[in-house]
Amino acid sequence: MTLNRDRAVVVSALKHAAPYIRLFKGKVFVLKVGGEIFADAATTRTIMEQVGILYQVGIKVVLVHGGGPQSTELAKALGLDTKFIDGRRVTDGPSLDVATMVLNGQINTRVLAVCRDLEIPAVGISGVDAGLIRAHRRPPVQKAGQADVDYGFVGDIDTVDADVLRKQLDNGLMPVVSPLSCDSAGTVLNINADTVAAAIAAELKAEKLILATGAPGILKDRNDPQSLISYIDRAGLRKLGDDGHLADGMLPKAAAIDAAIANGVSRVHIISYKMPDSLLLEVFTNEGTGTLVVDDIG
Amino acid sequence: MTLNRDRAVVVSALKHAAPYIRLFKGKVFVLKVGGEIFADAATTRTIMEQVGILYQVGIKVVLVHGGGPQSTELAKALGLDTKFIDGRRVTDGPSLDVATMVLNGQINTRVLAVCRDLEIPAVGISGVDAGLIRAHRRPPVQKAGQADVDYGFVGDIDTVDADVLRKQLDNGLMPVVSPLSCDSAGTVLNINADTVAAAIAAELKAEKLILATGAPGILKDRNDPQSLISYIDRAGLRKLGDDGHLADGMLPKAAAIDAAIANGVSRVHIISYKMPDSLLLEVFTNEGTGTLVVDDIG
Amino acid sequence: MTLNRDRAVVVSALKHAAPYIRLFKGKVFVLKVGGEIFADAATTRTIMEQVGILYQVGIKVVLVHGGGPQSTELAKALGLDTKFIDGRRVTDGPSLDVATMVLNGQINTRVLAVCRDLEIPAVGISGVDAGLIRAHRRPPVQKAGQADVDYGFVGDIDTVDADVLRKQLDNGLMPVVSPLSCDSAGTVLNINADTVAAAIAAELKAEKLILATGAPGILKDRNDPQSLISYIDRAGLRKLGDDGHLADGMLPKAAAIDAAIANGVSRVHIISYKMPDSLLLEVFTNEGTGTLVVDDIG
Amino acid sequence: MTLNRDRAVVVSALKHAAPYIRLFKGKVFVLKVGGEIFADAATTRTIMEQVGILYQVGIKVVLVHGGGPQSTELAKALGLDTKFIDGRRVTDGPSLDVATMVLNGQINTRVLAVCRDLEIPAVGISGVDAGLIRAHRRPPVQKAGQADVDYGFVGDIDTVDADVLRKQLDNGLMPVVSPLSCDSAGTVLNINADTVAAAIAAELKAEKLILATGAPGILKDRNDPQSLISYIDRAGLRKLGDDGHLADGMLPKAAAIDAAIANGVSRVHIISYKMPDSLLLEVFTNEGTGTLVVDDIG
Amino acid sequence: MTLNRDRAVVVSALKHAAPYIRLFKGKVFVLKVGGEIFADAATTRTIMEQVGILYQVGIKVVLVHGGGPQSTELAKALGLDTKFIDGRRVTDGPSLDVATMVLNGQINTRVLAVCRDLEIPAVGISGVDAGLIRAHRRPPVQKAGQADVDYGFVGDIDTVDADVLRKQLDNGLMPVVSPLSCDSAGTVLNINADTVAAAIAAELKAEKLILATGAPGILKDRNDPQSLISYIDRAGLRKLGDDGHLADGMLPKAAAIDAAIANGVSRVHIISYKMPDSLLLEVFTNEGTGTLVVDDIG
Amino acid sequence: MTLNRDRAVVVSALKHAAPYIRLFKGKVFVLKVGGEIFADAATTRTIMEQVGILYQVGIKVVLVHGGGPQSTELAKALGLDTKFIDGRRVTDGPSLDVATMVLNGQINTRVLAVCRDLEIPAVGISGVDAGLIRAHRRPPVQKAGQADVDYGFVGDIDTVDADVLRKQLDNGLMPVVSPLSCDSAGTVLNINADTVAAAIAAELKAEKLILATGAPGILKDRNDPQSLISYIDRAGLRKLGDDGHLADGMLPKAAAIDAAIANGVSRVHIISYKMPDSLLLEVFTNEGTGTLVVDDIG
Repeated sequence: MTLNRDRAVVVSALKHAAPYIRLFKGKVFVLKVGGEIFADAATTRTIMEQVGILYQVGIKVVLVHGGGPQSTELAKALGLDTKFIDGRRVTDGPSLDVATMVLNGQINTRVLAVCRDLEIPAVGISGVDAGLIRAHRRPPVQKAGQADVDYGFVGDIDTVDADVLRKQLDNGLMPVVSPLSCDSAGTVLNINADTVAAAIAAELKAEKLILATGAPGILKDRNDPQSLISYIDRAGLRKLGDDGHLADGMLPKAAAIDAAIANGVSRVHIISYKMPDSLLLEVFTNEGTGTLVVDDIG
Repeated sequence: MTLNRDRAVVVSALKHAAPYIRLFKGKVFVLKVGGEIFADAATTRTIMEQVGILYQVGIKVVLVHGGGPQSTELAKALGLDTKFIDGRRVTDGPSLDVATMVLNGQINTRVLAVCRDLEIPAVGISGVDAGLIRAHRRPPVQKAGQADVDYGFVGDIDTVDADVLRKQLDNGLMPVVSPLSCDSAGTVLNINADTVAAAIAAELKAEKLILATGAPGILKDRNDPQSLISYIDRAGLRKLGDDGHLADGMLPKAAAIDAAIANGVSRVHIISYKMPDSLLLEVFTNEGTGTLVVDDIG
Repeated sequence: MTLNRDRAVVVSALKHAAPYIRLFKGKVFVLKVGGEIFADAATTRTIMEQVGILYQVGIKVVLVHGGGPQSTELAKALGLDTKFIDGRRVTDGPSLDVATMVLNGQINTRVLAVCRDLEIPAVGISGVDAGLIRAHRRPPVQKAGQADVDYGFVGDIDTVDADVLRKQLDNGLMPVVSPLSCDSAGTVLNINADTVAAAIAAELKAEKLILATGAPGILKDRNDPQSLISYIDRAGLRKLGDDGHLADGMLPKAAAIDAAIANGVSRVHIISYKMPDSLLLEVFTNEGTGTLVVDDIG
Repeated sequence: MTLNRDRAVVVSALKHAAPYIRLFKGKVFVLKVGGEIFADAATTRTIMEQVGILYQVGIKVVLVHGGGPQSTELAKALGLDTKFIDGRRVTDGPSLDVATMVLNGQINTRVLAVCRDLEIPAVGISGVDAGLIRAHRRPPVQKAGQADVDYGFVGDIDTVDADVLRKQLDNGLMPVVSPLSCDSAGTVLNINADTVAAAIAAELKAEKLILATGAPGILKDRNDPQSLISYIDRAGLRKLGDDGHLADGMLPKAAAIDAAIANGVSRVHIISYKMPDSLLLEVFTNEGTGTLVVDDIG
Repeated sequence: MTLNRDRAVVVSALKHAAPYIRLFKGKVFVLKVGGEIFADAATTRTIMEQVGILYQVGIKVVLVHGGGPQSTELAKALGLDTKFIDGRRVTDGPSLDVATMVLNGQINTRVLAVCRDLEIPAVGISGVDAGLIRAHRRPPVQKAGQADVDYGFVGDIDTVDADVLRKQLDNGLMPVVSPLSCDSAGTVLNINADTVAAAIAAELKAEKLILATGAPGILKDRNDPQSLISYIDRAGLRKLGDDGHLADGMLPKAAAIDAAIANGVSRVHIISYKMPDSLLLEVFTNEGTGTLVVDDIG
Repeated sequence: MTLNRDRAVVVSALKHAAPYIRLFKGKVFVLKVGGEIFADAATTRTIMEQVGILYQVGIKVVLVHGGGPQSTELAKALGLDTKFIDGRRVTDGPSLDVATMVLNGQINTRVLAVCRDLEIPAVGISGVDAGLIRAHRRPPVQKAGQADVDYGFVGDIDTVDADVLRKQLDNGLMPVVSPLSCDSAGTVLNINADTVAAAIAAELKAEKLILATGAPGILKDRNDPQSLISYIDRAGLRKLGDDGHLADGMLPKAAAIDAAIANGVSRVHIISYKMPDSLLLEVFTNEGTGTLVVDDIG
């Protein structure tokens, strides 16, 4: 009978999951989810349902989101040109306005609305709130024999006030964090969401930092999706980068991962949002599905 | 591949269980487990693993245990006669000593030791601790045309001080409760474990009272194990008793169930410890496996 | 000497303000500021400096902002048509997206950034956060002899969970509230900011609800700015409306004021953001500058 | 008149006791009482009345009890042989069952029942509860030229989690501690009650550790009860042992005393439960009745 | 041997006192001590040593003191005339200054200094502190056919803010209260210390109000010290007054006693400071030494 | 119109004062006010109104008062001779009684009464309360070739228990401190109020110690009131003293200032109570009116 098999499934799974629940209950996980995931209602729901299960079993989740594709889209709709120098985006005034509306407005609210539906009590917050992130504008980059390159309203983090987040977690609320930040004079600054997630994870002494991306994890060969590395340490990751094996999009992630581990986060996971249930599998099974980075495999 | 199917099982089960976890997290369940279950290391472990999973997902479990078979066995080993009048056990002085050693010593400690192994932080407690249960000795029963019948050191509950249990629960500890109690002069008194569990459930305003027994639940026909009643209300249960359909062992349970519901426990479950995973199935599936008793089906 | 006169000014003013500080310290003020004020950096700074002074002297300010003009502007930039039926805006899907980006993104962030500069520890929050505002979509309005009129994603408030705000206030943080809300299924809904401010003020049992508008207050004659009413009660306000003396823009405000007072807010002030220092003058001088509405002048 | 003399007695005694009450109020005393004391209702009551007075004047008492004689008696009643090797008891499986029933069941409950009568709010607890005592089974002792000697289910303490006791004390409850403990796999282990009391006293930073025994204290000459030593330090106690002056039963006590002082308990008292009021006299008079051991008389 | 008898005394007394300690621990006693007791170092010390014992055993004592004789003495030293009208003292400006210096300065400080010596952590406080006592000046008394009689700076109590005292008690401090009070404009007012003690006892819901006086208690015959009444109720006390059996000095005390009982203090004791140990005997023996007044003997 | 100018004044002053309020809110200021200020109702009110404003804007004020002139006056009224040796007052027994009545009685009460009127919730306290100040009597001073000089009941501070004050401040109460103290045997001792204020400021880690005196501040030339020094450091102050430029009355103040700074108070202000609004001007304007002493101008 189908019924009985289903029941057996529930019970067996609870038994399987219980040791992980015991292990992780009350621990802080910082989860960074790229903007592309929230571009689509179905993938949004898929990831948030998994987040909801982490929340229900007692894990203290801090969700940091990006918003790149949506910013590009809105800029286009408004007829703005996105300038790039040497392949890096320049955040001028109008671009910053776009990022503000997309990150703090569109995406943050969308995530909160799904949380309302899933009965996860969540609060939106950005680096601009209270003193969560204090940053300064990145000075123009000097290039030998060229004019200085100013990437615009882009910030580098000075301090993270983890207390703002800790109070929400202690109240049973899940913070949904937009990476937008500002300096002490109130100038809003854009900061890479991976960087913000890594800094928050370090400050909260998180058990895990999990980066949900479009790739299955870190690849030995950037062109071969089958070459997934399951387990690697900082030195190994650095060597991959030095040897040119990391995809361009992975480079800032690699720097964020390295910083998080250097500042005390013991496990960083890179998983693919495209693989079904990847977040649950990563947390609740021994093998996981993506890449686990630690300080030193030894 | 086996592996992948297993993983799918974990994930699917977590999704299935999550709404129940959300529903029950932080709620109090009083679970009464009969002594026969603890007579055997295997059944002890089976029930306690299920209890551990309830604990891990955040349910506040209070475990009340019995100890009848073990008392009978120890009495026999010590060469004591167990007296019965009209089929009811008489608790004389030596019997009370035996009950004390078995309930507060042997069984309570055995349960706590298994909890240590399963990493459930549990504390033993009995009705004698602080003011948990204040009782008085049941007066001899007057029978027309016969000598009064004195059942010995048997108590009736005056008050339950739920605060003693609440403090343990608030500290994240699981109380393992022996039903032995005493009066204000320190005379130890034996009280039926179902009665104690019902009184504690009422005082703690428990979400559920669950009685784990040797029977599959309440039967329409006491002689037909297939005649299980899944869902019944107080009036129905009373009628069953009045009509003589309840087994002798079920009569005191029926009284305890009735009292618990009358005092505010909205759901009482009767399950069989012999059916595998019955506790988890009862809590985490819609259908359950035993009998659910409510106030009024309406 | 200029210096000495200036010093005398400081001292005399402190003495003048002290009784008001004593009176209001620790009290909750809900301040609603229309979107038009935040359209301009100078008026934004002007109002926020005054808010900062309220915060510094110990008043617990909850700031609710609107965003109408900015929404209109962004809709125009995106080439969207704003539909009106009988002069009321219809919030279709694209309009709701615009409102989300403007209210929760652009304006809320702008206010927080100014707070960072003014060293007011503020946190952004919207009706979508946790369970702050639970609303339902307003059903289509039936009009005799016409097709039903559906105003789109517009909500009516079911409940306000003031606890979310109270915790922020207790932590010394100033909530900056966007009126955007949602229903239990996560459908985002637009709600009039005056209505939201009134509901929050009632739920927090605020000492004062202050509405900062473009008008100097409530006018006896909507066409004569000199006809300001300094002091009026609910009956008076209702009569003004019934007699057609209230400007169109004032009608929903009048309803919000009436509801706030009916639900226990004892004083509602309407002031003009265009009059210099109007907020400070209203709070710290006896005469104020706008209109004070109370339950019953008697 | 008798009456007046009695009243004078009360008053004079209160004055005499007050400085000691001031000195000890809120301080932790760990009191170890041997099982022989609880063999008899009269001596049980005598010691517990004194404990009750310590509790009433505000001393935080932790009572650790033994149970040797009762275990021997129950073993005999059950027809079990108690094996000894080189004069030391071997705890095999049945012996452990007996110890469990006697320590955690019979004696602990008996003490709690007397506490109920004396209105001392007490809770029973053993090393098996939560993580109070984490121990490991003592490995077989290797003897040159002989087979290894295995003393059975006997434990050595790894850690004491004093928090479990501290929470009870903070709630105004008196812990009554059975020395039975277990390892991390849930194997129950017997541990000497003096050793447990000393470890708990050290972990709680107790003001005093008091050992109530059958002897009047430590004797200079084990055969001469008149040779009581009132005051001695660790070096002196060790020398007594080295010189063979300590009775066999005193040797493990001496080791426990030495360990307690080494770990920070500044005063250890050995008193006789046979001397009337010895506990009160030891605490509330300057001279005491037994032996006081300190770190270094200097 | 003297020594052994003394020890027996300590022990027997502790046993005798323990039930009273259990009964009164944590309860509030308001003790009013007349100024004449503090006129002399020996009687001061005698009463305060008894107070210290109450404090040490855990009773929450609030001590209210008078200061009449000292005021008279200082007035005389300063050459002031004390005016009386119809036998009642008139408190003019200079008299009030004298009372202020004596009550809040001399006596309050003297009591606190003795507390320092006795290691009772005490804090001085008067009705003028924070909002402890809010009073108004008693209006001139109109007498038929005579000029109004103004008793000067004499107050009648409007409210007592017991919180000020409760916070001290919760911090383990003993409040030493001077009855001097003031009105809302800061005019200092003298109030009878018995009246203040009764009002404080009522507001604190004190277990006992104890008045230490020069008389042995309430006498049936004001001229016969042997006619002490041990036990009386409100009706009896009122009748004694109506029948003219109360001494003049006892009349305001009788009114204060009546008010205290009417407002919820269940036991009021009148004792003599001249009888040795009267305070301890009253609290710690069944018979006491003075008069106990209750609501209704029935 | 006068009205409008007045309103402008309020607003401009609030703006001016706000940054100082933000700076000082929640900080501890210890203010020492000499007895001469309280000799007169008008100057008392003037200073206390300023204190009230500090309190209202959220500064935690501890007020320490002297009482020299009043003691002299009362001694004279009582016909006591004030003895001086080498110009320093000798505090014999009667002088100590006078100081007690004046400091703890007259002045402390007068300040509290004014606080009642100004609605500042204040509590009186002296060094004798609980363990606020533990001092010892200053030993007789040995002078070469002369008899020892005993200044009588004069104390030197051993310890300050700041907790007593901190609890009042945490409860929102303003402590009004009399410098009278005592030793552990309860002997009352007089201590210079500047010394007490400096010790309390150090122990509370006060933001500021402010001494309100009759002089405008520290003068370069003790005879030239125009030679006010606005800003000086410890070395400069010591040099002034060494060079004989400090007035006699300023010498103990200079020692207290030096000690306060040495023990961690970063800013000490000396202001004149005679200059109108000097306290407010010192705190709320950049220039202040008196002398600011810091550790090292550098």
